[in-house]
Amino acid sequence: MRVFSQRIHTIFVISLFFVNIIFAQTGGQNFDLAEYSDFSDPVIPSSFISLYEGEDSYIILVEKRGQKLFLLNNVNGNISIIKSYLCSTGRKIGDKKESGDLRTPEGVYFFRSKIDSTELPPLYGAGAFVLDYPNIFDRIKHKNGYGIWLHGTNEPERIQNSNDTKGCIVVKNEDILELGKYIVLNETPIIVVNEIVYRKLEYVNKDKDEVLTFLKKWKKSWESKNIKEYIQCYSRYFKFRKMNLKAFRSYKKRVFNIYKWIKININNIQIFKSESNILISFLQEFKTDSYYDYGVKQLYLTKEDNSYKIIGELWSKVEDNTGNIK
Amino acid sequence: MRVFSQRIHTIFVISLFFVNIIFAQTGGQNFDLAEYSDFSDPVIPSSFISLYEGEDSYIILVEKRGQKLFLLNNVNGNISIIKSYLCSTGRKIGDKKESGDLRTPEGVYFFRSKIDSTELPPLYGAGAFVLDYPNIFDRIKHKNGYGIWLHGTNEPERIQNSNDTKGCIVVKNEDILELGKYIVLNETPIIVVNEIVYRKLEYVNKDKDEVLTFLKKWKKSWESKNIKEYIQCYSRYFKFRKMNLKAFRSYKKRVFNIYKWIKININNIQIFKSESNILISFLQEFKTDSYYDYGVKQLYLTKEDNSYKIIGELWSKVEDNTGNIK
Repeated sequence: MRVFSQRIHTIFVISLFFVNIIFAQTGGQNFDLAEYSDFSDPVIPSSFISLYEGEDSYIILVEKRGQKLFLLNNVNGNISIIKSYLCSTGRKIGDKKESGDLRTPEGVYFFRSKIDSTELPPLYGAGAFVLDYPNIFDRIKHKNGYGIWLHGTNEPERIQNSNDTKGCIVVKNEDILELGKYIVLNETPIIVVNEIVYRKLEYVNKDKDEVLTFLKKWKKSWESKNIKEYIQCYSRYFKFRKMNLKAFRSYKKRVFNIYKWIKININNIQIFKSESNILISFLQEFKTDSYYDYGVKQLYLTKEDNSYKIIGELWSKVEDNTGNIK
Repeated sequence: MRVFSQRIHTIFVISLFFVNIIFAQTGGQNFDLAEYSDFSDPVIPSSFISLYEGEDSYIILVEKRGQKLFLLNNVNGNISIIKSYLCSTGRKIGDKKESGDLRTPEGVYFFRSKIDSTELPPLYGAGAFVLDYPNIFDRIKHKNGYGIWLHGTNEPERIQNSNDTKGCIVVKNEDILELGKYIVLNETPIIVVNEIVYRKLEYVNKDKDEVLTFLKKWKKSWESKNIKEYIQCYSRYFKFRKMNLKAFRSYKKRVFNIYKWIKININNIQIFKSESNILISFLQEFKTDSYYDYGVKQLYLTKEDNSYKIIGELWSKVEDNTGNIK
């Protein structure tokens, strides 16, 4: 499904969702269109900062208010909607905060595992994909709970009833089977929002430039084994496994000394916005004189004193991550 | 500047800001336009739910990120930008939380008083308008601080320096004099956002219908002197002067009994969204068999168990509220 790109430098092209302003007629009321050049700004959905140019990839976008799930296709940085599906989300309105609150969490998530129907009670229908709620951003906000899945159902009428789950996102059985074909574990994002809102492209591009400058600095400090500059990219609240920033620094310094040289190739960068935070996901090729690995990396960024800092990071080996449910 | 409208039923017409999607070329990078019907939704800036049809009124919109102040004109529910001004806001990025944090608060505010230059140190230039920060929503969030003004300056070069204030919004002297002509104290809103974001008209209209249904219920319960239904419109956290909800109920019950009949006319309704809260501002004509008053009312609404409730309200007599600085 995905071929490793040989290009070292990825060209970033973001596409625009076409947001159309029309003479709208809703509920019998007329809305007048006013054309005002000052507000003639191009806008895009606020979750997207940048998508990579290159091979196809897929993104799932869930709009809770409309009880809709959109399967999006990114081709060369252009997003298209392949299909929209009906879905049902948590019974209670609002963002999930704690276990048992019957809410569907809002944020940018990845599917970390899949569960075939044979391993599940009938309630979950044709299969399930496990979201990484609570993720690093959620845990900072002391959100808790678990078991947020995208799954099918043996009662298709639940999909017609909106807001009928304990927090999971439920679609019809045929839809979970179809969606599974597009899901790559650890790589395909599922973005959950209450309403899709739109931001000006001008600011999105400013954010993108700032994030890419940060990413370049991080990569350069790693390749040059400059522990001081490398650690400056991390938040004082950064945690990695059981390590705090100080322990992480010692660990990294030790690892830096093992290798004569380090070369990092970054590809397929996707940048998402989650409230005021940034999530970067990319394919990372790590080469040294004595070691090689290749995987998908996620960097969770917050702003501290107006600079981006990594508050958490995740890596997983790229292997057969396809989401086909057997 | 404003003539009392005789129409009892106000017709609500909201206009659309024209948000244009173009082939954008920014910073030497090409952006491809993708036209996708599923995202062809009409969108409007997220602070506006509804503006009234009728006479002219003015709204000030400050976008901190762009250091821009927009003077907007509402004519029959259509918003136009009369002019955009350069401005300078707080030195620190982000929403104001406490006294001395050097941030400009984000929200929907009203000007409660004006101060002529003769009463001010030269620093404030040609005059100042006092914003009602912290307002009812801010105080619920335990935000504090004071002295957030829109004012001029005797150092016009400050406007060129972006983010150069302690939290005030500063414009050039000629601009504060010009803006003053459009400001009606207690009635002209000043909306402060970091970035203007846009919402789908579909959801804005749903919100509008819900808010107007609530307002109708509140008005009807007041006119019919139905204390139970009237109090159901208020939050259990409602405060009015020194009264909690229980004391307010007793007070209102007493007042209801004074009058044989009550008739409320509501005009020039403006509905704004401030995060997940709603602010309604309107002209209120209060008539009874023995008493009459006419003023501007602001209702501050929050959602509790998915229903709107009034968390606070303000009223001020309509008199000469024009903001001309002498």
